[in-house]
Amino acid sequence: MKAEEVKVTFQPSGRSVFVLPGTLLLEAAGRAGVVLQTPCGGRGTCGKCKVRIVAGSCVAAPAAERILPAEQVQAGYRLACQTYVEQERLVIDIPAESRFEAADQILTGHADRGMTLRPVITKRFFRLAAPTKLDAGSDAARLRAAVGAVEIPFALLRRLPGFLRSHDWQGTAVLAGNRLLGLEAGDTSAQAYGVAVDLGTTTVVGTLFSLATGEEKAVSSMMNPQVGFGDDVISRISRVRENDGALAELQQTAVKAINALIRRLGESAGVHARDMYEIVIAGNSTMQQLFCGLDPSALGEMPFVQVFDGALTLQAATLGLAVNPGAEVFVFPQIGGFVGGDTVAGMLAARLDHAGRPALLIDIGTNGEIVLAHDGRFQATSTAAGPAFEGARIVQGMRATAGAIEKVVLRDEVLLNVIGNTRPVGICGTALIDAVAELLRKGIIDETGRILSAADVPPGVPDPLLARLTEADGQTNFVLARAGESASGEPIYLWQKDVRELQLATGAIRAGVNILLRRVGLAPGDLGSVLLAGAFGNFIRRSNARRIGLLPQISGDRIHFIGNAASLGAKLALLSADERECADRLRRKTEHVDLSLDPEFQMEFGMAMMFPSEELDDLAREERVGARP
Amino acid sequence: MKAEEVKVTFQPSGRSVFVLPGTLLLEAAGRAGVVLQTPCGGRGTCGKCKVRIVAGSCVAAPAAERILPAEQVQAGYRLACQTYVEQERLVIDIPAESRFEAADQILTGHADRGMTLRPVITKRFFRLAAPTKLDAGSDAARLRAAVGAVEIPFALLRRLPGFLRSHDWQGTAVLAGNRLLGLEAGDTSAQAYGVAVDLGTTTVVGTLFSLATGEEKAVSSMMNPQVGFGDDVISRISRVRENDGALAELQQTAVKAINALIRRLGESAGVHARDMYEIVIAGNSTMQQLFCGLDPSALGEMPFVQVFDGALTLQAATLGLAVNPGAEVFVFPQIGGFVGGDTVAGMLAARLDHAGRPALLIDIGTNGEIVLAHDGRFQATSTAAGPAFEGARIVQGMRATAGAIEKVVLRDEVLLNVIGNTRPVGICGTALIDAVAELLRKGIIDETGRILSAADVPPGVPDPLLARLTEADGQTNFVLARAGESASGEPIYLWQKDVRELQLATGAIRAGVNILLRRVGLAPGDLGSVLLAGAFGNFIRRSNARRIGLLPQISGDRIHFIGNAASLGAKLALLSADERECADRLRRKTEHVDLSLDPEFQMEFGMAMMFPSEELDDLAREERVGARP
Repeated sequence: MKAEEVKVTFQPSGRSVFVLPGTLLLEAAGRAGVVLQTPCGGRGTCGKCKVRIVAGSCVAAPAAERILPAEQVQAGYRLACQTYVEQERLVIDIPAESRFEAADQILTGHADRGMTLRPVITKRFFRLAAPTKLDAGSDAARLRAAVGAVEIPFALLRRLPGFLRSHDWQGTAVLAGNRLLGLEAGDTSAQAYGVAVDLGTTTVVGTLFSLATGEEKAVSSMMNPQVGFGDDVISRISRVRENDGALAELQQTAVKAINALIRRLGESAGVHARDMYEIVIAGNSTMQQLFCGLDPSALGEMPFVQVFDGALTLQAATLGLAVNPGAEVFVFPQIGGFVGGDTVAGMLAARLDHAGRPALLIDIGTNGEIVLAHDGRFQATSTAAGPAFEGARIVQGMRATAGAIEKVVLRDEVLLNVIGNTRPVGICGTALIDAVAELLRKGIIDETGRILSAADVPPGVPDPLLARLTEADGQTNFVLARAGESASGEPIYLWQKDVRELQLATGAIRAGVNILLRRVGLAPGDLGSVLLAGAFGNFIRRSNARRIGLLPQISGDRIHFIGNAASLGAKLALLSADERECADRLRRKTEHVDLSLDPEFQMEFGMAMMFPSEELDDLAREERVGARP
Repeated sequence: MKAEEVKVTFQPSGRSVFVLPGTLLLEAAGRAGVVLQTPCGGRGTCGKCKVRIVAGSCVAAPAAERILPAEQVQAGYRLACQTYVEQERLVIDIPAESRFEAADQILTGHADRGMTLRPVITKRFFRLAAPTKLDAGSDAARLRAAVGAVEIPFALLRRLPGFLRSHDWQGTAVLAGNRLLGLEAGDTSAQAYGVAVDLGTTTVVGTLFSLATGEEKAVSSMMNPQVGFGDDVISRISRVRENDGALAELQQTAVKAINALIRRLGESAGVHARDMYEIVIAGNSTMQQLFCGLDPSALGEMPFVQVFDGALTLQAATLGLAVNPGAEVFVFPQIGGFVGGDTVAGMLAARLDHAGRPALLIDIGTNGEIVLAHDGRFQATSTAAGPAFEGARIVQGMRATAGAIEKVVLRDEVLLNVIGNTRPVGICGTALIDAVAELLRKGIIDETGRILSAADVPPGVPDPLLARLTEADGQTNFVLARAGESASGEPIYLWQKDVRELQLATGAIRAGVNILLRRVGLAPGDLGSVLLAGAFGNFIRRSNARRIGLLPQISGDRIHFIGNAASLGAKLALLSADERECADRLRRKTEHVDLSLDPEFQMEFGMAMMFPSEELDDLAREERVGARP
């Protein structure tokens, strides 16, 4: 049975999603790609996730009425973490201060993650006095007296005398730190742009910023066209190992994709490519090395060795990027093995260096990376856990695109949410987690992960759910959408095999977390916070992720979604040299843990595949549709 | 009358010169390009200029017998500053410790100018452990652990993984400071060479050194082929100002010349060009800028502006030098106007920063540069004084090559020394100074520079000299070589006009010296030392230079020849990073003085053209042939 979905539109981005009535506004916003501030963990106590209902209506929660001034509540302000979508279509305005974005942070100077705009790239307009007999210093000295003790590359030194004399001794110096990067006629100091690139195995996201103001000008994303060479990093590495010329081909493919993004960003913001002076790249080790043309072959075999670890600063022209020819490319530092620049960027965005209590960062993308912060030191590891969450290896799995079942709730019947509000085509990662968690709660799946036959199910399960259990090849599967409900006319199942895949993926992450914790003598309960990052992370229901053991069994107020942390980290590094230094410090303080070396990994992994037997109940109310009193 | 000359051959260089009997060995060595240590100023008190007579004989001076052990005197050891060439052909061995050369200084560690071999270019053989599961750091980190925290340029980072794995994790890292410059298979750490280039307006001298041992391997020189574009810097600058493309042409001409030198040096020492990793260039502002392709047009008009002042570190490949493609080129810092890298190199070689008392450095090449060191600060200026000393603008003038009269002594008759022991063709700079000084002593030239007619000459001048005074166009000239004595069969004169040219050249330098002294409130007598540099400087007779006012009227023990200081400075910078830093400190502490801006310059210049009326007598004995008691 498919419930009637409601359209919710968010301003100022204009993005819309369809959600079930009873969905939290916070969750709906997340689905629309809008991450809100939730320092209190969504308990309705901090008031930071305040939004305004522009069209439609929602009841104000008692918490909102305690926190917000009465006139604001009257004007339609609500706390997104406490307010539920009802039957009516909604248009919701997100105030800048509620958004969780780097640029906003710069403008509002939020204390927790305040960042001073101090980009590496700066521009300085200069007006020099022409030389006289009494002031006959060299051209270079004259320029330096105006713009600081800059290093002048030879090609620019050759241009300098002609430039100064033909432009009446004035112009704009483009600087990268203390290195002169270009000389431009007139005052172009306001025209300085940079692009932060989150270079994922599957998706590439680029964000264009003004380096003069810190303002975000445009964002654009596309499929990483390297998927044509293989879906995951291992297949792309194999390609390089087996074919001469594949490295160059993969490198050029990445550069072309980024050039396409740059073109789109420039068009949408009306910014010339020649005014873009810096590109920041954050990706996993394989993506970063392929982009740079650095042979990743050694990542394709034990002991998984990277070419570099410290950050790289390269010339855009060397790599073939279609921006200003003098532009710089900053490639994030890497930690080891498959723990790459995206993890460092995520640690930076999550401010792991400021964690007062032990903190855990879990970033689930095509791979899963885990970082544990404790006493100012860090341990990081990666697992191949991601694919299942992206729908890979799931019988009727698919990515979270139109037609994907993205949410499953079990009451007396099955309630589904489908992306794009169409008939379902398949199931994506979040719904997989939902389905298994809900079936665990009903007793239809047991702790070992077996889907019980109708005869074995404990009493009390409603008949319509029992009717969905079907046998095939001696295993039981669960019908999520009946033949008549799906796009193809065929039923969509949760297969027993899918549950096994989820157990493997979840077990890998859980075992990783447990091993990292044990290495420093901590238990899950010692964690002050669990930060869930990655595009996928945004859409997970914490209660369900915790139910299946993907997240530790700690109270919900310690579990935070931090959005696409790698992308946010890339933005921070673009806008602040201090953040880059911080990234390098984080790298140096981080130990790379190879889980396969831990003598207890196999044992831990086996145990972690078992689902937890009990459930913490603190999140049930706010996240499970229909559970609202 | 031409006296019988004696051949003197110096070992180990094998160079020979022909000199008049009665010439000091010190002077003969200088003529052969061998500069000896003379810390005592040639007074016979320090014993540093000790040489050994291998064939022929010379009487030992009393000073030598006081200083040298008796058995050494018996074995033929003499003090070059106290010993005179007699009638016999000589072969003289110069012990390494008596030679005044950078490489020797390194080996002997002479306290005054001790230099630690610490070249910017170093090579380190490394043997890395292959990565294991327990030691899986990145390739870059593994290399750095062995060779230090080096910066790895991107092109080398791309080569790194393949290099390490195909060479069994060992090889040689070539470093420029902390920057990786190359990776070589096997242990090549002994094969590291560099070339110091003294890039003169007229002559280019290259010296090949082993950077591993500091040893000088070969030296070679050639005419600067840019003379085809004009003899002096002004004509070459005009060429650039007037012709598009001339800058590139002049740049390539310089590079081709240096490449030819590099080829010769490599052949003569058996060293591959690919093992040369560094070129140090010291030249005047115009030569350095032309070599770099940096437009010198602004040096062609008031206020004479340079493109750069701090040292440049460039890529050999960018400039087209035929050495290792990764090699670096160090171009000396410049001070201002026409005071360029050769002056800084000279200051470095002269250790002006260690001068305890005020010191004056005078470097006479195609231009003349003057530096005054006082209280840890420096003033530098340049004059166009050089050409006359190189024979330019002198009626029968020529360079100091075969056939040039290079020394003139007046006794009852004229004694001449001709380079190559042939009939004279013309007169070079040293002989011009000699002739004028000697004629001043005889009273034949008066203080105003006029050559008196025979009738006006004071009594006591021998008749054969009076007979050489001839009248033409109302002026008197002096016959140096009679018609029958010269190569052409025509007489060679010292023309009245030549004396005027010498007065202009000498006056410019003397005025420069006086103005620099006055700016800091000093008089010539306050000078602790006058250091005479430049190839030309080596051959000047101090007593004669002082007589005509080219050198200040101070006692001879304060006047030192320091040889080709620019070339020596280039060698120091090649062999020691500390020396480079010192060069930059010297530059920053040096004020460029534009003489034309001094309100008293014209007055000073006019007065300086008058010859001094009196003569200090302390040097007469040792330098004037025939004056030996």
